[in-house]
Amino acid sequence: MVSKENKKVRVGVVGGAGYTGGELLRLLVGHPEIKLTTVTSRSEAGKKIDDIWPNLRDKCNLLFCDISINELINNCDLVFFATPHGVSMELIPALMDKGIKVIDLSADFRLKNIPVWEKWYGMKHSCPDLVKNAVYALPEINRDEIVGASLLACPGCYPTSIQLGFLPLVEKNMIDPNFLIANSASGVSGAGKQNNSKFSFTEISENFKAYSVAGHRHLPEIEQGLNQISNESVNLTFVPHLLPITRGIHSTLYCKPFDMNVDFQELFEQRYANEHFVNVLPSGTYPETKIVSGTNFCEIGIQPISNSGLLAILVVEDNLVKGAAGQAVQVMNIVYSWPETTGLNNISLLL
Amino acid sequence: MVSKENKKVRVGVVGGAGYTGGELLRLLVGHPEIKLTTVTSRSEAGKKIDDIWPNLRDKCNLLFCDISINELINNCDLVFFATPHGVSMELIPALMDKGIKVIDLSADFRLKNIPVWEKWYGMKHSCPDLVKNAVYALPEINRDEIVGASLLACPGCYPTSIQLGFLPLVEKNMIDPNFLIANSASGVSGAGKQNNSKFSFTEISENFKAYSVAGHRHLPEIEQGLNQISNESVNLTFVPHLLPITRGIHSTLYCKPFDMNVDFQELFEQRYANEHFVNVLPSGTYPETKIVSGTNFCEIGIQPISNSGLLAILVVEDNLVKGAAGQAVQVMNIVYSWPETTGLNNISLLL
Amino acid sequence: MVSKENKKVRVGVVGGAGYTGGELLRLLVGHPEIKLTTVTSRSEAGKKIDDIWPNLRDKCNLLFCDISINELINNCDLVFFATPHGVSMELIPALMDKGIKVIDLSADFRLKNIPVWEKWYGMKHSCPDLVKNAVYALPEINRDEIVGASLLACPGCYPTSIQLGFLPLVEKNMIDPNFLIANSASGVSGAGKQNNSKFSFTEISENFKAYSVAGHRHLPEIEQGLNQISNESVNLTFVPHLLPITRGIHSTLYCKPFDMNVDFQELFEQRYANEHFVNVLPSGTYPETKIVSGTNFCEIGIQPISNSGLLAILVVEDNLVKGAAGQAVQVMNIVYSWPETTGLNNISLLL
Amino acid sequence: MVSKENKKVRVGVVGGAGYTGGELLRLLVGHPEIKLTTVTSRSEAGKKIDDIWPNLRDKCNLLFCDISINELINNCDLVFFATPHGVSMELIPALMDKGIKVIDLSADFRLKNIPVWEKWYGMKHSCPDLVKNAVYALPEINRDEIVGASLLACPGCYPTSIQLGFLPLVEKNMIDPNFLIANSASGVSGAGKQNNSKFSFTEISENFKAYSVAGHRHLPEIEQGLNQISNESVNLTFVPHLLPITRGIHSTLYCKPFDMNVDFQELFEQRYANEHFVNVLPSGTYPETKIVSGTNFCEIGIQPISNSGLLAILVVEDNLVKGAAGQAVQVMNIVYSWPETTGLNNISLLL
Repeated sequence: MVSKENKKVRVGVVGGAGYTGGELLRLLVGHPEIKLTTVTSRSEAGKKIDDIWPNLRDKCNLLFCDISINELINNCDLVFFATPHGVSMELIPALMDKGIKVIDLSADFRLKNIPVWEKWYGMKHSCPDLVKNAVYALPEINRDEIVGASLLACPGCYPTSIQLGFLPLVEKNMIDPNFLIANSASGVSGAGKQNNSKFSFTEISENFKAYSVAGHRHLPEIEQGLNQISNESVNLTFVPHLLPITRGIHSTLYCKPFDMNVDFQELFEQRYANEHFVNVLPSGTYPETKIVSGTNFCEIGIQPISNSGLLAILVVEDNLVKGAAGQAVQVMNIVYSWPETTGLNNISLLL
Repeated sequence: MVSKENKKVRVGVVGGAGYTGGELLRLLVGHPEIKLTTVTSRSEAGKKIDDIWPNLRDKCNLLFCDISINELINNCDLVFFATPHGVSMELIPALMDKGIKVIDLSADFRLKNIPVWEKWYGMKHSCPDLVKNAVYALPEINRDEIVGASLLACPGCYPTSIQLGFLPLVEKNMIDPNFLIANSASGVSGAGKQNNSKFSFTEISENFKAYSVAGHRHLPEIEQGLNQISNESVNLTFVPHLLPITRGIHSTLYCKPFDMNVDFQELFEQRYANEHFVNVLPSGTYPETKIVSGTNFCEIGIQPISNSGLLAILVVEDNLVKGAAGQAVQVMNIVYSWPETTGLNNISLLL
Repeated sequence: MVSKENKKVRVGVVGGAGYTGGELLRLLVGHPEIKLTTVTSRSEAGKKIDDIWPNLRDKCNLLFCDISINELINNCDLVFFATPHGVSMELIPALMDKGIKVIDLSADFRLKNIPVWEKWYGMKHSCPDLVKNAVYALPEINRDEIVGASLLACPGCYPTSIQLGFLPLVEKNMIDPNFLIANSASGVSGAGKQNNSKFSFTEISENFKAYSVAGHRHLPEIEQGLNQISNESVNLTFVPHLLPITRGIHSTLYCKPFDMNVDFQELFEQRYANEHFVNVLPSGTYPETKIVSGTNFCEIGIQPISNSGLLAILVVEDNLVKGAAGQAVQVMNIVYSWPETTGLNNISLLL
Repeated sequence: MVSKENKKVRVGVVGGAGYTGGELLRLLVGHPEIKLTTVTSRSEAGKKIDDIWPNLRDKCNLLFCDISINELINNCDLVFFATPHGVSMELIPALMDKGIKVIDLSADFRLKNIPVWEKWYGMKHSCPDLVKNAVYALPEINRDEIVGASLLACPGCYPTSIQLGFLPLVEKNMIDPNFLIANSASGVSGAGKQNNSKFSFTEISENFKAYSVAGHRHLPEIEQGLNQISNESVNLTFVPHLLPITRGIHSTLYCKPFDMNVDFQELFEQRYANEHFVNVLPSGTYPETKIVSGTNFCEIGIQPISNSGLLAILVVEDNLVKGAAGQAVQVMNIVYSWPETTGLNNISLLL
């Protein structure tokens, strides 16, 4: 299964000094089918990659470089963007023109509705025409569209966990679409590498709070994803919280099934029977963020609440892996028809 | 306001070596109206209190002793129980007979429905007749019944936060009683001082999970409390989670108002205008566990969710203070008609 | 002991939005002898103090203001500086001229040797003449000089713990002056409120490391302090480390006594018998940072190492309290001959 | 390099439910040269391994079983012991008799001096004769003795970090043997899986302290190891501390070189040039526990302290990997002459 060196796909990473970028590099340096050729960072250009990411000592000899479209075109068959929103949309058209594939971990191509994107992200979209062609790359929903696609918009971290939790119910129209709640909590790495005392250890440790309760950018993305598979438009209440942990998202979902007599455990197990990266836990078992830390797994527990007629679904993932870099690698594997687990086999430390 | 020494109320604490007991001692050693006379602990009997609780060095010269009903009767005007369930119900009748007042921080006298109590706590109740006389001591709801009462059952930690969050809405019957959700998260001290690797730093740090999703002992207590103030029986979905922090409960509550045009901010502000220990935060502000850490405050943020027609209420408290020992001291202050804040004025460290 | 309102000392704080400033405000709002009149912050001027420090809700109605020497002169009898180095030296001369007392928590007036100060702090000192008059305000060494002084330079956080640990030995010349080691570790709040991802929860949690091993600014300060009480110049090796905790310094000191048969436990107990804020722990007991968290206590354990002929001294303090703001309040109490514990009586939460 | 299935070495693990045992399983399930046949646990016998270690879902289908010497003999070519002290010495003689190789992660065969072992571990040694034959399995010192050996005593976690830090200096007799200090700090997992509230999150989080200052069991082991390579007996002062992190040991070592003009950086770099698992960091760089978390690396920084004539050496490792299970796998690789990195190539998560 391992390609010869000169057959390897040449890969570039734009934005390699952020947390998502660093996680992507961790996964890519061990990927047998690709060769990392170019890693950019405006802030760290010229530095050795392992000065910033010392876990990559002896694994990666590249230096960070400034972004150069020409270099990306000349050196890459595929480019990942691990940039803040607003960056990739400026660069991707030129790469598309030259037939370079792009997997975008940022938000720029996730929302099909341009005015909605512009409202939530507070800027004008620079290439709305390309948005139509972008595939929303959540493999468990859109695997077929991903194969062979050229422009792939990876889902956000919260949206991955919430869509995977509601998916088996929504696609069969088994729950009241007007009443979906996602009470989510994310580790601090989800905020990215920020020079801001709000994310300092001093202010985060021993603390817990909700934020963006009135509305979060991931809300329209989640609703768009669920609406795509539902007969009727869903109405989601989404409240994110900030956990004093580094990695991990835990989404506690509530919904109202039309029929509480359905075997929901069976429904979820069947839906995800062939999904390597989604584990449905045994009945009565609930997921923990630490168990999937560092891995591309999403784990789901299901609990009907008999007294209230609601169903609780509990979902965990590592926000940097299944919620970002790991999913991007999974998507790449699908694009090239490599085994979907290639480069994604590491075992969680657990402790 | 400070009594002369010989007028001070003589206070005993049963179960002084657990976390709740230790917190109670921290508050009592600085309380100007009482004199601590007896502190029991089966496991630590004979040891100096400040050997177990070194923060009380120079503040408390007592030794832990074994439980002796006679000693409690002879030395105490008031006895606090900070014991696991099943202990206080065996001892309280003898104290009641002698006119000793009791503030019970355990669950033994919280539920009026004895079969329900026996089902959730897995044992037979030994003095069901006394349960009728016990006052459920949540001051913001039952202050009048607390004044001068003899047997006071302090609310659980989760129930305090959840009842205070729903109270203004439920007592005015403004929300659908069939649809209340409490998504709560507690710090590890809420589990008490346990010799169990499940609560070890190694297994808790960098982890987050739900537990008791199918049903938690606090559910019937919360429903009983809300039903007392509601026209119609409420139906609550309650999912607790375990946070990697030491102190603090955060409850994110969801409900469906009959009319979304109500000014909920104003409703909450008015309801709690005269409650010293409940802060309603300004609109758009959300509470944080760390801000109330070590204090008896409960802080509440309210956020209507316009797209879904739901209302989110966010509540924090310190589970060991407003959720246990601090509330017990507040209750004592009310029982004796002392200013309600006596002994409860310390400022949170924040950092 | 409580003054009438119009007799209270009027106090200003320059730099009230940093961590040390916030801690100082926490202590000052409960101090019965003073009235807080002015709190400055360049970054937060115009905001309410309790917007930045919500633990002070209902305790402090002031707004942050910009620094104005005239306002400080008109409104204050005493001004605390909780500023980065280089700020107070620019402002203090004008205050001195008007007879305002100053307690400086920054480094500007700690070192008597101006060229050494200029080397370590990388700038020219703007008022070297005033340095001579400044009292180095470590009460356990210099209490007599503090009484009635006008310009007080509070010690750094590490220097407080290290000087208090070596003091009983050095002042009696009982240890080899050429061989002192201080292996110290500090909580993250010691770095101040920094907008720098190096101090983010993500990069600090589950991590531990040494820093400034080749030399730290506090080294000359510690040596100056120890030399003042020693017959012979000391030679200190000082290695600081960064702990994943918010508050607390732990210094593990090693030294070589000339005579191992001395009763070091007795020596320390006698030396600190009358020092309220220094606890010498019983033999065989070692201090913990959490026990003194939020308090002005310094706790010390002593352990002779029989096989190697060395003495280990273990010292803890809260870097923000005894290492900064609490010590500053203690110094103020001494300056005005108030009981030294005034405003410093809160009990540690322990858990 | 991957053996055929029927050529794989059959491996058993005694004590697979503890933290060290779990870590060993994590590494063994991915090791290409071995086949895990038997995993024992007294407390968990009969349960599925992935019920206790959910990170091994789909990686290991075994059940925990009770210890049976016959089963170990029949099913294993090599047995690892990850047991508390006192267990392996009862079982190993029977295995030796049958020619089964043993890698013991416990302390039973580390100390050559039986009375010293019996004093520190508080029990009689049951097979002192075997101790002579045991190889102290620190590869960087004893690699040659490890090859082909039958009974291997893996070093303790602290001893690994401290010996590797002093090794280049002691083996060349470049430092004063009477003056070695090891100021070490360990993550909580080093205490093992304990049902004891002393290790609860509540009591560890935001805390730091020294312990066993008067003497720790690892002291004689470290001195034995250093004496083996030194001309003169060393005298070590060893003070361990407990860090609020899960994984990681940081040892800050102090020593007095006879000649400060030596290029210590060069000395260390040359000594470890061919050691894959020991990284000597560039001058001025200091190691961090998180960088090696989950890996078998030991990283070392060297800093001469010019003002005091001492040398500080800073060493980190993951106590569960290079300090225990990883080193045991490295030792197995050497015993069988497999590439030393086999099964030990995972990359640290860093964040």
